[in-house]
Amino acid sequence: MKKESSAPTMKDVAREAGVALGTVSKVVNGLPVGDSYKVRVEDAIQKLNYQVNSYAQGLKASKTYTIALLIPNTVEPFFSALAYHINTALLKRKYRMLLCSTDFDSAQEQEYVTMAQQNKVDGIIGLTYNPNLVIEENTPFVAIDRSMGANIPCVASDNFAGGQLAAEKLADFGCKHVAFLRIGSSLTNEPNKRKAGFENGCLSRGLSYEMKILNDGEPYEEFERFLVEHIHDGKLSFDGIFCVTDSLAFSVIQTLKRLNQRVPEDVQVIGFDGTRFFGNKDYVCSTIVQPLPEIAEMCVELLLRENVTAIPQLVCLPVTYAYGGTTSEKRGSQNYAEE
Amino acid sequence: MKKESSAPTMKDVAREAGVALGTVSKVVNGLPVGDSYKVRVEDAIQKLNYQVNSYAQGLKASKTYTIALLIPNTVEPFFSALAYHINTALLKRKYRMLLCSTDFDSAQEQEYVTMAQQNKVDGIIGLTYNPNLVIEENTPFVAIDRSMGANIPCVASDNFAGGQLAAEKLADFGCKHVAFLRIGSSLTNEPNKRKAGFENGCLSRGLSYEMKILNDGEPYEEFERFLVEHIHDGKLSFDGIFCVTDSLAFSVIQTLKRLNQRVPEDVQVIGFDGTRFFGNKDYVCSTIVQPLPEIAEMCVELLLRENVTAIPQLVCLPVTYAYGGTTSEKRGSQNYAEE
Repeated sequence: MKKESSAPTMKDVAREAGVALGTVSKVVNGLPVGDSYKVRVEDAIQKLNYQVNSYAQGLKASKTYTIALLIPNTVEPFFSALAYHINTALLKRKYRMLLCSTDFDSAQEQEYVTMAQQNKVDGIIGLTYNPNLVIEENTPFVAIDRSMGANIPCVASDNFAGGQLAAEKLADFGCKHVAFLRIGSSLTNEPNKRKAGFENGCLSRGLSYEMKILNDGEPYEEFERFLVEHIHDGKLSFDGIFCVTDSLAFSVIQTLKRLNQRVPEDVQVIGFDGTRFFGNKDYVCSTIVQPLPEIAEMCVELLLRENVTAIPQLVCLPVTYAYGGTTSEKRGSQNYAEE
Repeated sequence: MKKESSAPTMKDVAREAGVALGTVSKVVNGLPVGDSYKVRVEDAIQKLNYQVNSYAQGLKASKTYTIALLIPNTVEPFFSALAYHINTALLKRKYRMLLCSTDFDSAQEQEYVTMAQQNKVDGIIGLTYNPNLVIEENTPFVAIDRSMGANIPCVASDNFAGGQLAAEKLADFGCKHVAFLRIGSSLTNEPNKRKAGFENGCLSRGLSYEMKILNDGEPYEEFERFLVEHIHDGKLSFDGIFCVTDSLAFSVIQTLKRLNQRVPEDVQVIGFDGTRFFGNKDYVCSTIVQPLPEIAEMCVELLLRENVTAIPQLVCLPVTYAYGGTTSEKRGSQNYAEE
């Protein structure tokens, strides 16, 4: 092997591999590229003995090996499982994690962002719905579920595909007329794409559908009223319902039972998140499962990589469907064998 | 007010108030004393302008204002809610919290204890079942649920009273022959007192009882077998069951339904912890509620107080009963109006 007179750069790797600089960056940063490209870049890295991060680490100010996680709380199962997986991904890399349960407190969130700007922590992973959060450029920040601005990567499930998958599953299981129920923030965010994906799935599979959309703060009783309005002669006019979260699905299933509608015989229900009872038992309902370990790994990877030449603005990770007792897998023309 | 020639000490406060030094310490540390003592000590503190912690803080090495929490995970609801309340109690005091989800990994736990010994954190709050954890004397450590050695305070619910309360409630609601089901660590720990409390309650209220005790690692199916063995002619010989946790109660209720036993009509079930669906909805079952906000506050108080002259070895905080749909409040001779 030819000895290099100076340490090879990412450009040298690109030249050696015969690929664009951006492709090398993607491989180095663990982002998807075609397999043949990946092999060529990895071969070139090995041949040139290219040291990922070697310069960046030398230039970097003293590190704290501490990352802060901003999350509303660790009481709701989605948040608490996310905190667990991020904690695990960091500890595996010998990083410490400061937990900041923000309870949606903007001042608290801003304080932790300032800590990152002062290098008191190496970076922040944040799930926040604070519209006024000021994040200066070059603050190491990875956002979950909501884009926080240019140069700040956002990691989320593929919410659009998840909504579409829910519609396809309901169609597979024999539903004809379905409903979508959503409550959540009206700020632009990734989970909002569940709606568009669901509509898309309904249209492509010929399902007729209705929507009931509430904003945070509006009472749950609005959903009850919506359901009651759609019961005629004791029969609900929907045979399938997609709820934006498992938490909402859980409440809706209780309401449906009170209204003498059998789940799944009369109406099938699919939620979103992949919540299990007690964190580790059965799924709460049939659900679109968010890939929490993969989301956690991606957040940590993006935050800790130092020589990122092309920061991905949005990384969407694939979701899956899981049976949880509130759908009729055998009712439709197709029979799926998940779970 | 007379000007003091030097800063007053705790002894001065005791003399001024006419109480023992230990009483002053208790008041300063927020531990229970008679109201009249409390007023006298507080008056003396004000009169002498006694500054709590003034010396200790001056002598103390530079503080990090960071506390580490060791907890198995934040996926199980009891752990995740505990982490949330401790996090909130610390943030309120402008302390940061390092989260360490240990997954029962002893090496991980020891590493964080070492950090505390090296003053990289100001102290540790730990819920650990690691029998080999070495905690050097003078390491600021507050334990939850398990005594970790001399001079390390342990904070827990009043588990004995909780077990007793469960038996009393079952008796109130008309039960005659009850069972206690437990799975958990065989190491000495506070939750184990639920058993003794329950036995005590059964004896005092004339309930006959049986026990089925498993150790961690033994399969849940042992409980199923126990229940099946106690069904004769389709009827379970128990009319009440106390489960050591809500998580176990949840599984037992599912098993009972599969065995065609109606809950609460045929058999009433009480769990322990106070777990709610999704962290904030209905109780999972009728339950003995652990006072998590109070446990969190007590842990933080005990850890951050600096001039503790008498460290309490064990602080047990009062539990309450909550109805969660798996008991028949109106069946017995007495009618309680909780919830």
